[in-house]
Amino acid sequence: MERIEHRACFGGWQDVYGHRSEVLGCDMRFAVYLPPQAAKKPVPVLYWLSGLTCTEQNFITKAGAQRYAAEQGVALVAPDTSPRGEGVADAEGYDLGIGAGFYINATREPWARHYRMHDYVVHELPALIEAHCPVTNARAVSGHSMGGHGALTIALRNPGRYRSVSAFSPIVAPSQVPWGEKAFAAYLGDDREAWKAWDATELVQTASERLPLLIDQGDADEFLRTQLRPHLLKTAAEAAGHPLTLRMQPGYDHSYYFIASFIGEHIAYHAAALRS
Amino acid sequence: MERIEHRACFGGWQDVYGHRSEVLGCDMRFAVYLPPQAAKKPVPVLYWLSGLTCTEQNFITKAGAQRYAAEQGVALVAPDTSPRGEGVADAEGYDLGIGAGFYINATREPWARHYRMHDYVVHELPALIEAHCPVTNARAVSGHSMGGHGALTIALRNPGRYRSVSAFSPIVAPSQVPWGEKAFAAYLGDDREAWKAWDATELVQTASERLPLLIDQGDADEFLRTQLRPHLLKTAAEAAGHPLTLRMQPGYDHSYYFIASFIGEHIAYHAAALRS
Repeated sequence: MERIEHRACFGGWQDVYGHRSEVLGCDMRFAVYLPPQAAKKPVPVLYWLSGLTCTEQNFITKAGAQRYAAEQGVALVAPDTSPRGEGVADAEGYDLGIGAGFYINATREPWARHYRMHDYVVHELPALIEAHCPVTNARAVSGHSMGGHGALTIALRNPGRYRSVSAFSPIVAPSQVPWGEKAFAAYLGDDREAWKAWDATELVQTASERLPLLIDQGDADEFLRTQLRPHLLKTAAEAAGHPLTLRMQPGYDHSYYFIASFIGEHIAYHAAALRS
Repeated sequence: MERIEHRACFGGWQDVYGHRSEVLGCDMRFAVYLPPQAAKKPVPVLYWLSGLTCTEQNFITKAGAQRYAAEQGVALVAPDTSPRGEGVADAEGYDLGIGAGFYINATREPWARHYRMHDYVVHELPALIEAHCPVTNARAVSGHSMGGHGALTIALRNPGRYRSVSAFSPIVAPSQVPWGEKAFAAYLGDDREAWKAWDATELVQTASERLPLLIDQGDADEFLRTQLRPHLLKTAAEAAGHPLTLRMQPGYDHSYYFIASFIGEHIAYHAAALRS
């Protein structure tokens, strides 16, 4: 892996690396924030999954998360949101193809060759981080919108792998909303049975591990009623007895100003779980 | 003035407005962050002046300043960095013309007609803010790079108008560095005597008000030795008996990661002066 950016930040370092991903079959970038504590001993890691159209840059430049990570002694890792580069399939629109990997493993061509963001985020990237950075194997995961869907599904699909999970403004039921239906039909095909393995509202009904789900959602979010619909997950979690905290935040929208306002609480929440 | 953005942030509101500037002769945008305290009573204002190439967006999306403004009960106002739009003169390169107003009043054509950022920032904009927003007339000023030069010169030129001033990585001696020489030659002409009225290192020698200057400067800043040269101001301030604190911050560069790391200390510093 090759270091592309290296910037002092809150006493630690905000870095960006490039590497060849075997899982995705393309060159990828990811961001790592190492808090000051990492200079002395390995620290746990919070993985952050961004939303549609984002790269590894959005979270590290806009969320103001480094201050809290430095306070709590937690590393932050932010991957890109899809495979990228020459030969990678793409489509018209911001909600399919490049910038819209949905953190799943595609099974349909032309997507199946590169679009394997689940395996990249869950396996290849942590193995790389844990081999080359001063971090432990204690992991937490969070994300925003499409990345909130990614965090929830990845935690639910991989019991024991994450100490904690949270999400901002997540897509919780992709099988039931336009963004998810469009992406899943392309990446997975028309058989909706196959979609269930990538849908938090389905996964929560049969989860073997009762990892609590923490969700913050702005009630002025422009996508709340059409694409996000967090009550679908809340109802399913209640029926299944799966612990979920859904906090509706009055006045907040879908932007990074919302994330910035509450990321400190999420990082403190993850840090407590990562220390335990 | 017309509201273009309105987003909840740390319990307050991050707004962006558009308006017709009489001083600049064009339409302008500026950002206002109103902390939660402003819903109950008027709050003081910190004006933030951004650097080359920036708009009103850079500071509000990247500095993470709203958290501290919400803690301290201070409004933040971030104008654009130059006049902008059809009919406004421009030049090749990022360091002259649009995005590079240098917070001065130009006297040479084609610049003199629109490039009057000093009068806009010092007079027209505060009058507008103080007439339409829940703020007091207690003002502080800070900025980055070209905007650090703006903050220092504006405070030194306008005794009694600002309670406090600070700067990140400022251009302190524009008459002696390439960025400043190029801009001043264009905006003010070849007579270097006329440049002195817009140069902090000159102004500090005859300042009638001993307003303390607080400067943070990263020692890994890629422009430190060529464009910024803060020791020129330090030497002049010491000779004149003008109070100046120059903090060299080890490892930090010229980016917003540096600003984000120390903006909390600057906002606390300004808040204390604004309360007094």
